[in-house]
Amino acid sequence: MSRAFNFAAGPATLPEPVLRQAQEELMDWHGVGASIVELSHRGPEFMEVAAQAEADLRRLVSIPDDYAVLFLQGGATAQQALMALNFTSPGQRVDYVVTGHWGKTALKQVRPYCDVNVAADGEPGGFRDIPGRETWKLSPDAAYVHYTANETIHGVEFHDIPDVGEVPLFADFSSSIASEPLDVSRFGLIYGGAQKNLGPVGVAVVIVRRDLLERAGQPRAEILDYRAHLKGDSMLNTPPTWNWYLAGLVFKWMLAEGGVEEFARRNARKAGLLYDVIDHSGGFYRNDVAVAARSRMNIPFFLHDPSLDAAFLERAAQNGMISLKGHRVLGGMRASIYNAMPEAGVQALATFMRDFQQRNG
Amino acid sequence: MSRAFNFAAGPATLPEPVLRQAQEELMDWHGVGASIVELSHRGPEFMEVAAQAEADLRRLVSIPDDYAVLFLQGGATAQQALMALNFTSPGQRVDYVVTGHWGKTALKQVRPYCDVNVAADGEPGGFRDIPGRETWKLSPDAAYVHYTANETIHGVEFHDIPDVGEVPLFADFSSSIASEPLDVSRFGLIYGGAQKNLGPVGVAVVIVRRDLLERAGQPRAEILDYRAHLKGDSMLNTPPTWNWYLAGLVFKWMLAEGGVEEFARRNARKAGLLYDVIDHSGGFYRNDVAVAARSRMNIPFFLHDPSLDAAFLERAAQNGMISLKGHRVLGGMRASIYNAMPEAGVQALATFMRDFQQRNG
Repeated sequence: MSRAFNFAAGPATLPEPVLRQAQEELMDWHGVGASIVELSHRGPEFMEVAAQAEADLRRLVSIPDDYAVLFLQGGATAQQALMALNFTSPGQRVDYVVTGHWGKTALKQVRPYCDVNVAADGEPGGFRDIPGRETWKLSPDAAYVHYTANETIHGVEFHDIPDVGEVPLFADFSSSIASEPLDVSRFGLIYGGAQKNLGPVGVAVVIVRRDLLERAGQPRAEILDYRAHLKGDSMLNTPPTWNWYLAGLVFKWMLAEGGVEEFARRNARKAGLLYDVIDHSGGFYRNDVAVAARSRMNIPFFLHDPSLDAAFLERAAQNGMISLKGHRVLGGMRASIYNAMPEAGVQALATFMRDFQQRNG
Repeated sequence: MSRAFNFAAGPATLPEPVLRQAQEELMDWHGVGASIVELSHRGPEFMEVAAQAEADLRRLVSIPDDYAVLFLQGGATAQQALMALNFTSPGQRVDYVVTGHWGKTALKQVRPYCDVNVAADGEPGGFRDIPGRETWKLSPDAAYVHYTANETIHGVEFHDIPDVGEVPLFADFSSSIASEPLDVSRFGLIYGGAQKNLGPVGVAVVIVRRDLLERAGQPRAEILDYRAHLKGDSMLNTPPTWNWYLAGLVFKWMLAEGGVEEFARRNARKAGLLYDVIDHSGGFYRNDVAVAARSRMNIPFFLHDPSLDAAFLERAAQNGMISLKGHRVLGGMRASIYNAMPEAGVQALATFMRDFQQRNG
């Protein structure tokens, strides 16, 4: 088929102009006689690509100068282990606010190193809402407070930055970074895998307040040390050059499209369209998340009759819409609509959902 | 320019048919309406790509069934930390044989966790030879013995597998895996970044004897645990799908070209050609490595007059040969001639070197 509207949760759809440029450049990058994926990361070509990507990301996300930016391997999950190793002393208290599957998974990376306090837990409520800030049991001596800005499986998103006082706030922004303006200065550390809003899988971004890097941390190999990575310009060992390059192309595309302010508008319209179809379906479709905590990025929904699931997915695919099957943890359907998902794709899905209901309601 | 002969040490040249296929498939993989880099790693499309890549690698490198294969992020360097965490108890003795820059760098990843014994060290000799096996000071109680099969900077390569008795042998094969037949059963663990002989940067391969995974290891996050990665089919978190896919295409290409036996013949011819030019240059070119330890993969060489270096590189580039500048650690020149470097490229370089000598000798 031609290009479908791809609602995958990550790896996710990429901007078509970016893919087209990467395709054109794949055999010979800018006339140097080789692909960017074949060139030394230490050569002038890739060094420029890398520096430009950082500059563009800084502009896109408005990253203050007193924050360092790292481009690393290992995805968001590896960073969850590294933040314990780099910013806590052995056995130190850390506070985790858990509002979905990924916040819960993060605990596994930290428990071997820290005294983990789950300060708030949405699981008893089925991860359908964010526990009220007044219920959080924060520790005054915590090394940091961690939360997940957007939960891709449960479709739960923070729409405000929580106030946690003087303790540095760490946040997993894998699935919502650059989707709207963000006051980075409120955070100690922001991190995310690139494969949702920032580009391809295989590279993760860490944005960290420089003074935190002075913490001694725990015994660790050089390759697990953020200071060493910063000193080595994220090239302590060979970085994933193609993935970094492709992320850089996505940053340029987002800037050219109008930056995070423009994507905030588009994303609000896109999410609004789908929630509207769901909420006006008279129960044919259902989203269980409290309205105030609904995600703009990932919209899980269920058909009132699960026996229609297979037909829904099949007909959607016939209509050029793929990857709508929900995550195995939750079942049902899920539409992931990051920056690169065009409004036309969401409009097509909304139309299809109404039509499917009419035929099967 | 059109495609040059690219002698980069890694990231390195890729087989042109592989790049061409990746280019053709970049916008739409096998008619599914999306790029492979946009599809879920858990979907049937990528699961098949991943399984096929493992099957092809097993066939290519003749990996016995009692060895597990992992496809991971973090490059070879991350594996150097993970092998300490997974296969040693805290502070346990490990033996390292150091024959070049990368073997030395590996120590930094292990020292925080282990009692490192440098059993043999080529550095006093300028890393120009491999210390004789009879001089190695191995420890009977070591968790493993580690060496670097091929040193990309110093151009030093083991041409036999050292006998270390009952202690498991671990080896960094980043730059020579699949370049010739290998008896995997002699090893406890083989690992390497893919960016030299196996494909693109951003994915590393670990081949490990399954019984070793029963060792308790040291306290570690789940994402640093090989057992967890194996249980999760190397998809504990989102894997670098495009890199894995491209490596898979390279495996298929190598099998179609005749497998490791054929590449062993080609690589011997290629290296022979360059060493021949150097050794018959009457000192115009120089390689300092003891003949028995010379690398088939990376050939560092020096011009007798370093003031000619810039002209050599410039004229080489004009003749369609790039990335010949030596690593900053050693200076001079370096020709990296992995599997994907065609014999025509090495012939062109040999001709150019003779010609350059004639004009400047």
